[in-house]
Amino acid sequence: MAAETLSALRSLMASHSPPLHALVVPSEDYHQSEYVSARDKRRAFVSGFTGSAGLALITKEEALLWTDGRYFLQAEQQLSAQWKLMRLAEDPPVDIWMADNLPKDAAIGVDPWCISIDTAQRWERAFAKKQQKLVQTTKNLVDEVWSTRPQEEINAAVVQPLKFAGRSVTDKLKDLRKKLVQEHACGIIFTALDEVAWLYNIRGKDVAYCPVVHAFAIVTSNFAFIYVDKRKVSNEVKTHLEENGIKIKEYTEVSLDAALLATDELDYVSTAKGSLAEVTKESENLPSETNKIVNGRHQTGEKSSNLIWADPGSCCYALYSKLNPDTVHLQQSPLALPKALKNPVELDGLRKAHIRDGAAVVQYLVWLDKKDIYGASGYFLEENTVKKEKHLQSLKLTEVTVSDKLEEFRASKEHFRGLSFPTISSVGPNAAIIHYSPEAETCAELDPDKIYLFDSGAQYLDGTTDITRTVHFGRPSDHEKACYTAVLKGHIALGNAIFPNGTNGHSLDILARIPLWKYGLDYRHGTGHGIGSYLNVHEGPHLISFRTRNVPLQSSMTVTDEPGYYEDGAFGIRLENVLVINKADTNYNFGDKGYLSFEHITWAPYQTKLIDLNLLNPEEKKWLNSYHSKCRDILAPYLDEAESAWLKKATEPVIV
Amino acid sequence: MAAETLSALRSLMASHSPPLHALVVPSEDYHQSEYVSARDKRRAFVSGFTGSAGLALITKEEALLWTDGRYFLQAEQQLSAQWKLMRLAEDPPVDIWMADNLPKDAAIGVDPWCISIDTAQRWERAFAKKQQKLVQTTKNLVDEVWSTRPQEEINAAVVQPLKFAGRSVTDKLKDLRKKLVQEHACGIIFTALDEVAWLYNIRGKDVAYCPVVHAFAIVTSNFAFIYVDKRKVSNEVKTHLEENGIKIKEYTEVSLDAALLATDELDYVSTAKGSLAEVTKESENLPSETNKIVNGRHQTGEKSSNLIWADPGSCCYALYSKLNPDTVHLQQSPLALPKALKNPVELDGLRKAHIRDGAAVVQYLVWLDKKDIYGASGYFLEENTVKKEKHLQSLKLTEVTVSDKLEEFRASKEHFRGLSFPTISSVGPNAAIIHYSPEAETCAELDPDKIYLFDSGAQYLDGTTDITRTVHFGRPSDHEKACYTAVLKGHIALGNAIFPNGTNGHSLDILARIPLWKYGLDYRHGTGHGIGSYLNVHEGPHLISFRTRNVPLQSSMTVTDEPGYYEDGAFGIRLENVLVINKADTNYNFGDKGYLSFEHITWAPYQTKLIDLNLLNPEEKKWLNSYHSKCRDILAPYLDEAESAWLKKATEPVIV
Repeated sequence: MAAETLSALRSLMASHSPPLHALVVPSEDYHQSEYVSARDKRRAFVSGFTGSAGLALITKEEALLWTDGRYFLQAEQQLSAQWKLMRLAEDPPVDIWMADNLPKDAAIGVDPWCISIDTAQRWERAFAKKQQKLVQTTKNLVDEVWSTRPQEEINAAVVQPLKFAGRSVTDKLKDLRKKLVQEHACGIIFTALDEVAWLYNIRGKDVAYCPVVHAFAIVTSNFAFIYVDKRKVSNEVKTHLEENGIKIKEYTEVSLDAALLATDELDYVSTAKGSLAEVTKESENLPSETNKIVNGRHQTGEKSSNLIWADPGSCCYALYSKLNPDTVHLQQSPLALPKALKNPVELDGLRKAHIRDGAAVVQYLVWLDKKDIYGASGYFLEENTVKKEKHLQSLKLTEVTVSDKLEEFRASKEHFRGLSFPTISSVGPNAAIIHYSPEAETCAELDPDKIYLFDSGAQYLDGTTDITRTVHFGRPSDHEKACYTAVLKGHIALGNAIFPNGTNGHSLDILARIPLWKYGLDYRHGTGHGIGSYLNVHEGPHLISFRTRNVPLQSSMTVTDEPGYYEDGAFGIRLENVLVINKADTNYNFGDKGYLSFEHITWAPYQTKLIDLNLLNPEEKKWLNSYHSKCRDILAPYLDEAESAWLKKATEPVIV
Repeated sequence: MAAETLSALRSLMASHSPPLHALVVPSEDYHQSEYVSARDKRRAFVSGFTGSAGLALITKEEALLWTDGRYFLQAEQQLSAQWKLMRLAEDPPVDIWMADNLPKDAAIGVDPWCISIDTAQRWERAFAKKQQKLVQTTKNLVDEVWSTRPQEEINAAVVQPLKFAGRSVTDKLKDLRKKLVQEHACGIIFTALDEVAWLYNIRGKDVAYCPVVHAFAIVTSNFAFIYVDKRKVSNEVKTHLEENGIKIKEYTEVSLDAALLATDELDYVSTAKGSLAEVTKESENLPSETNKIVNGRHQTGEKSSNLIWADPGSCCYALYSKLNPDTVHLQQSPLALPKALKNPVELDGLRKAHIRDGAAVVQYLVWLDKKDIYGASGYFLEENTVKKEKHLQSLKLTEVTVSDKLEEFRASKEHFRGLSFPTISSVGPNAAIIHYSPEAETCAELDPDKIYLFDSGAQYLDGTTDITRTVHFGRPSDHEKACYTAVLKGHIALGNAIFPNGTNGHSLDILARIPLWKYGLDYRHGTGHGIGSYLNVHEGPHLISFRTRNVPLQSSMTVTDEPGYYEDGAFGIRLENVLVINKADTNYNFGDKGYLSFEHITWAPYQTKLIDLNLLNPEEKKWLNSYHSKCRDILAPYLDEAESAWLKKATEPVIV
């Protein structure tokens, strides 16, 4: 099947005009999404590799798949013999590989809707030295050969009410337009699904795990547009959008409107069709230098504001190609930071959602502990397992059946709207596959002699959650304990950091790794990502990572704290909490920079049995006891008596 | 006097052709040195500010001085009213300031021997937007107005024998020429004084604190030249250089030879004059692809090797201007890394030098303690001071007189050749001036109620040292103790770090700051620098700093570990040891990267009285006890009985 797909694609490549030497198939959809809908999983379809990140390259002779350290093991397992795995950070990056290995003047095809401006321009620079060409295919060649491609689902969009969103569309648009004025831009194109959802306070169901609608947006000084399949727009949503002055257009119209924007005609066309009174009213709120409208565009006294703003990291190359490169303002989206800086209502919602979510996790642990997994000594005891007979098929405790149970506990909570990403429920060696995704037919059973790692989260109306715990229901080895403790030490050190404004996540990353490095251990993934407010579970622009990204951490951002350790073929450990960044109440304020600290908002116990207490210092033990004591108090209202008793035992203070 | 200098300079600027709108006076000499000889202290002469780093700018109306956080306090004190202090990292950098504040088409003068290629090119980019011009003055205008400028001293150069250098000139040249071949370079210009000294295994006395000779070097595929005042070349040095095939030319000839190098004539001219047999012999050792010599230049089969290598960070703009920009290879000097990676002989020497140096520091502390400073309770006791009458003028314990005593102890040690930088000997508020330099007439007396910080080092034939200790001979305040302890915690955390190959110093920097940040404290300087082998006390290319510099730390590098805390007008604390980077003996080797650790080679006690033991965790206390116990054992052979007894008391283990 994989071989047939490849040969069908190679035929299309050969008959393409111009003939293509290679075809790139990225993971991303038209919106550069990390998670995509089933019908957008083109890279998984062609390669068989289902991880969330990766890029496939098909040449006349070869088929290669690039992915990162989280997915090396999974890719090795999933790729068939035709495919070669290329390891990011070890093998040459795809653009360098293409420049070095494809012939001079080669034509390299890609669907320009599926790559960002940044990516396309980087590739074009790499290709220049051998006069290779990036060819924008007019159709997506994968779609042409994908006979079983799922149909588009028509999922109704909904309004995200102000009591959860915390800031009105009017206010968000006002802030946005101020930034357009500052940057001398007359319009901006949004393609990132979470940005459209956040800006317009709407949510949807178009992508599993992400409550977003497949939509684009264009905002000009006078107008705001959404491009969406109108069948998804209920009357409620229509009213909400229209009340906020947002014009609803068909999804496909974005192409034409981007071109009109480039030629300065979009506002004019829209004004002609719409009401001029409305425009005038809008513009009264703008700074005086921009209050003259000529041809639907503001004329400023000094500088002309004729730039079109596009985020080079998220805007697709297809739309960029409709613009005049001389008047494009390539800069990070002005929504990236406002979306990351949670408002008080969002922070309140996130804290509450994480409490309900923590209760579900505790209920799950209690349930697992009660299950008496095949004779394991249980969550608390540390005795050798007396293996019992395995359960009947129908009662089997597999990675999938238990994670279904976890979802059940979450689903019983208020405001639950689904999971925020595919639950990583992994036993023993599977836990070493960082982004492991169990399949019902092939997955492992829980095992009293093996570590069990679960990384999961949910979407609640008031917030998105993401938590990882690692547990053992039998007798962990000393090595497993030492590794768990090293991971915990890093997790605590990062969470306890106090740091001046201006510090970026890269600088903090080492705090989580130092306790592992002591033993010569490490992990091949970042340490923290932002998390959305009932939006994407992975959110920028900040990051805590060994990779440098010069975005300082700021008060009211969210970020995860998730170090790990993975021993191939043996086990994996990860501990993850969501943190909120607050102003720190330090005794001094050297350099008048203001200092920041983290607040844990995730609540679930660490398994004391897996901690080698000899390796914790008193400060770490005190922190553990304090966190555990808060867990108990905070989760109590959501637990029944038995669950509370279990949690009390699980959070018993350790001797400092 | 300062006013007269400024007006004399402004006259010269006005009569210059073209007339100059501004004149830049950098700190550096013709070799971009950090420390310069008395006659090269042009920036200090014009501005009055004597710190080691800074840049003066004189415009028609203004006089501005840029310096960094180490020197803000000192500069404020030293600059006269005509001068304005510009704070690096707070105020705009000098190039941006010039571009923004000087008129369109302005001519900005500078002596091109005193700025690096990097600096000149960065400025020219900044000037471009207003068509401003960087004008290379043919004479140094400051020298023209500096009637009291010291004469050049004729200091004899010496050979650094192999038993200390560890690697022969022949081997160093062979390694260097391999790199020239790799980079397709036919020649390279060295202007950094320590690189010339290191490459040719010579030392000198031309710059206080740095055992270097004012010299340039050019190395081609066939020849090696030194440009130096021949009066400095003794017979011994002449023989050493000639035996290693190095041609000795006058200092000023470098200009002409750079031009000959650019036009491909240097080797030809030299061959004509010299012996062709020698050239042929040399070239036998080179890879075969480079063994044809035409017109004195190697002809390779495939690629031509016609590039001239210059380090843009150290090579002066004057020499760069003699070259053809199209064939200049701008890249970090190929000596930077070999010089930083100490060979086993150098490491052995450095370890030994630091032991003798540590003994001198202990003897100094014993001497200070015995002095019974004006009734202080002493090094060990922590009682309120019963103030005694001050000493007679002749016996006064001032910052300068005590540091002279410290020098005396050092001078008594084997291989002593002088100090490695001006001793920072600072009491109370002076200790808050990071690079404080006491003057005999104005400096403070030691005070039983104030912290005393001394940062000092020496040049020994077998290694360069640099150590800082902070002590109190009376009763330190709780705040002083808390700050000392926070600095110590950072110092320990950094020194104890284990980290994978590939980690740069920037990533480690935070380890030294986190204990201070906890209280909202910080320090405005880097955390560590490389140190030379009987060479410069500050050595690159690596660095431990909040600034990013992408040079991974490597085994056999040296680096200091010197966090601090400075409270303006009150006190300063700094603790500094020199570390050697070794391969770490970790239990695991995740990612097969190999792990590294630090070895302290500095030996002198921390003052236990200044430590708040409640703030140290058991691991830190164990480290302290272990370090102190090693101090005792290692220094014993160099101390008399009384000194040993004192050290035993000073290194008494703390209760863990």
